[in-house]
Amino acid sequence: MDENRQTDPSMSPAEAGVAPSRAERREQQIQRILDAAKLCFVRHGFQGASMQQVCAEAGMSPGALYRYFASKEAIIEAITEEDRREDLEIFRLMEGMPVVDGVVTVAMAHMRRIHERGLAPLFAEIRAESMRNAAVERCCNESMLQVQQMLVPYLGAAIARGEIEPTGDLDVVMAVLMSIGEGLMLNDLLGQGFKPEEIEQILRTMAEAVLRPARKSVPETN
Amino acid sequence: MDENRQTDPSMSPAEAGVAPSRAERREQQIQRILDAAKLCFVRHGFQGASMQQVCAEAGMSPGALYRYFASKEAIIEAITEEDRREDLEIFRLMEGMPVVDGVVTVAMAHMRRIHERGLAPLFAEIRAESMRNAAVERCCNESMLQVQQMLVPYLGAAIARGEIEPTGDLDVVMAVLMSIGEGLMLNDLLGQGFKPEEIEQILRTMAEAVLRPARKSVPETN
Repeated sequence: MDENRQTDPSMSPAEAGVAPSRAERREQQIQRILDAAKLCFVRHGFQGASMQQVCAEAGMSPGALYRYFASKEAIIEAITEEDRREDLEIFRLMEGMPVVDGVVTVAMAHMRRIHERGLAPLFAEIRAESMRNAAVERCCNESMLQVQQMLVPYLGAAIARGEIEPTGDLDVVMAVLMSIGEGLMLNDLLGQGFKPEEIEQILRTMAEAVLRPARKSVPETN
Repeated sequence: MDENRQTDPSMSPAEAGVAPSRAERREQQIQRILDAAKLCFVRHGFQGASMQQVCAEAGMSPGALYRYFASKEAIIEAITEEDRREDLEIFRLMEGMPVVDGVVTVAMAHMRRIHERGLAPLFAEIRAESMRNAAVERCCNESMLQVQQMLVPYLGAAIARGEIEPTGDLDVVMAVLMSIGEGLMLNDLLGQGFKPEEIEQILRTMAEAVLRPARKSVPETN
């Protein structure tokens, strides 16, 4: 610990009466813009929303906003980057788990995050925009690539060690699983009132059928 | 056949040199507007597209367009109605089929239609808009309701006669199947170059696992 630091490290700079550093101030401003932009994109659509609306929602001058983001596309890039960082944490849950448990756990954690944070409308908007806007399409592709880069080695290693024997080629299975994941996310089944354990049971049944885990030899107990 | 009809019935009224009737002319105008609107909504987003752009794309005056549609929402209503009529035809394919075959056949027919007609961007746009626009949400709900009204009795009857025993309550199974269908549609896997038979195999595996058809007693052959 830095002996010269007199303030409680659990306090924010403001609480501690310390002016935020330049980097902290920058982070706060960026977060304010991203939060405002998410609201505007959901409310008016990406095409319908203007940088002026984002400024007004963030309570910032255009000059201040353009210092951080040159375009709506640049904002989407930051939003999807933020999302990928959270995705990485969710995917860390599956490490060391049997593969079917890992896949189902990650799918359920995703559904919970989307539901609790009300992200389905924002993702629907970004996805629709990705189909006409090359810059936004690149952001979506980066996110899908990250999922692939985590799932393919995870499933590939399990195939190699004989833990699973998927019912089709890994690339087709991956594409179907990712499509399913997107459909579940968009429909926010938890928001529709379905119980997580009921959804989880169906996802597990499908994952087992498609991934086909080898039956473990059960040790005889008497 | 109408003996007074002198023209080849396979010819359009224009080819036959017959002036289109008022109703035919109306149908043509509506179709022209719907086709123009689909292009505009995909290109600029529903919020970004204006009725003026739809007029320009359709080569029509605003006065002519407003005679048929009072708003962009009214156009979406007509587009989703058109889609529901085509859905009905696809769902007719499953009549009389064993349930797993029926569900897989309908899913594949949907994917083919979306792919061949390049409808994924339009559906992504309508779905995103449905999350902020009550009128568009109603259109999407009508479409989902129609799917439910076809699938629930189909699956329910199969449960009642012991053909299948789904792994969860019918309403949860339905919600998951419909979410999966939407994810597959949005991702246009056929457009991504995956072979229909590979996708079909995975869908069939999942459908069998979730719907659990009763094993038929195989007659012994020797």
